[in-house]
Amino acid sequence: MGRSFGILSRNVPSKATGRQVTDGTVMIIGGAEDKVRDRVILGRFAALAGGEDGVVVILSTASSFGPLAGERYSEIFRGLGIGTVRPVHAMTRIQANDPAFARQVRDATGIFLTGGNQLRLSSTIGGTLLAEAILERFRAGAVVAGTSAGASAMSSHMIAFGASGGTPKHRMAALAAGLGVLPSVIVDQHFQQRNRYGRLLSVIAQNPSLLGLGVDEDTAGVVGPDGVMEVIGRGSVTIIDGAEAETDAWEVKGHRPVMISGVVLHALPSGYRFDLRRRQRIATPDLKALPGGNVAST
Amino acid sequence: MGRSFGILSRNVPSKATGRQVTDGTVMIIGGAEDKVRDRVILGRFAALAGGEDGVVVILSTASSFGPLAGERYSEIFRGLGIGTVRPVHAMTRIQANDPAFARQVRDATGIFLTGGNQLRLSSTIGGTLLAEAILERFRAGAVVAGTSAGASAMSSHMIAFGASGGTPKHRMAALAAGLGVLPSVIVDQHFQQRNRYGRLLSVIAQNPSLLGLGVDEDTAGVVGPDGVMEVIGRGSVTIIDGAEAETDAWEVKGHRPVMISGVVLHALPSGYRFDLRRRQRIATPDLKALPGGNVAST
Repeated sequence: MGRSFGILSRNVPSKATGRQVTDGTVMIIGGAEDKVRDRVILGRFAALAGGEDGVVVILSTASSFGPLAGERYSEIFRGLGIGTVRPVHAMTRIQANDPAFARQVRDATGIFLTGGNQLRLSSTIGGTLLAEAILERFRAGAVVAGTSAGASAMSSHMIAFGASGGTPKHRMAALAAGLGVLPSVIVDQHFQQRNRYGRLLSVIAQNPSLLGLGVDEDTAGVVGPDGVMEVIGRGSVTIIDGAEAETDAWEVKGHRPVMISGVVLHALPSGYRFDLRRRQRIATPDLKALPGGNVAST
Repeated sequence: MGRSFGILSRNVPSKATGRQVTDGTVMIIGGAEDKVRDRVILGRFAALAGGEDGVVVILSTASSFGPLAGERYSEIFRGLGIGTVRPVHAMTRIQANDPAFARQVRDATGIFLTGGNQLRLSSTIGGTLLAEAILERFRAGAVVAGTSAGASAMSSHMIAFGASGGTPKHRMAALAAGLGVLPSVIVDQHFQQRNRYGRLLSVIAQNPSLLGLGVDEDTAGVVGPDGVMEVIGRGSVTIIDGAEAETDAWEVKGHRPVMISGVVLHALPSGYRFDLRRRQRIATPDLKALPGGNVAST
């Protein structure tokens, strides 16, 4: 209930919970998504946002390019057939708490957060009217996508910054509060390109309640209201599940390596699906039988 | 039976199998081990090789520095108190099949393989009298250690070369036959420093019968005759267990990402132990109770 536009009418009540599903789709994009060729990821966003009938808001708060980032994505989304494209460049908390800014989101069917610095995003819009307006649209069924810093900010707990390297170590990553459209996970981006296994493992060692999602560049996880994530794009999403792991993360000092043992890991390329709630991959035969299933060749 | 020198008399019959253990200890070193400060790793090798009563053979076939690599390690091992140090620089198969070269190993209590190019090592000494002499000394109880390329060559199946990056992809690593002192595993080195998660995951996807061991620089796995590996040094050993994993590795084409799902992963810093045969970590309380247990602070 409360779904306010028809484009997401495929979102049926969740069988898992029996409740009426009212949330939209979340896209976590690992950064550097293709903008000029087949645009698989941005095209999927445009389709989920409703195409010609869609209203897409681009939030470029994280970007160091100022309004230019919003302009660039505006051109792309217009090129992908979106009827109304609206860049919003809130750069202060005063702006983010200005009802005039928040009103620009009120009819959005798609909201896109650019890359940049996720701490700038959280410190500027966290807890403001603008953040509340985004969540409201999401609950009404809008698709909310973020690339790079924007992807990190999707979860409730986000990696604010950190060190690279494959081995988990103490003090490797700092957390901050994200927007919370995708709770219970923690997203890392540019995952394979920036060698971020270690920092994601160290965060999972300290926070096994969160499911770690490492998204490669030009790759996205598309999470539907049922909590099932489909991978699209050129790379993989690496899933790190520490639910059954043992660790000494609570007693390690300085920058020493952290022990983590019994982590379950999945590396899923395009076309594979993973149930984030049950923490298990959806077997491929079932996947092919899913209505609307869209199995890319790997 | 068959144990020919007293220094390894601490190797009691294995409780797990009940059989008399006749193999020596293997050390897989991730490269760039400390040579000038506390020398934890090289010091452990020197101790296992018998100290003053020890006979250490240094095999520098892999090195591009020619006999210099052997000379450098000779100085170090003499400095660590080894009584007899003997560099052997076999650079052709004719030398490696020369009984005079093989005889230089005949009384070794420790054999150390330098870094360099593991394919040079396997192609020069694989299947020769020299390789046979090394295996013979190992079976008699000698410690066999390898650093970097030398570590890779310890297993029966070794990574010959490959690409870096965190995401497993098809054709990411090429295999070759190693020396086989540590079968049933596959070793990768400079693991965190060279971003080698992807290539080790891709090899495990294709070969789940092998246990993946990614060894960081200045870090070593010390594997006793009972198949239990102790981690020492500054970094971690990452263990990748694909026994229960699902994969599409058999059907992926080109250089596309490989799906692997359900891998069990362990990142173990200094002081932790792992049973390579049972594929499980030895819990820390038991560890402290082990005779000779040497739990470094992490």
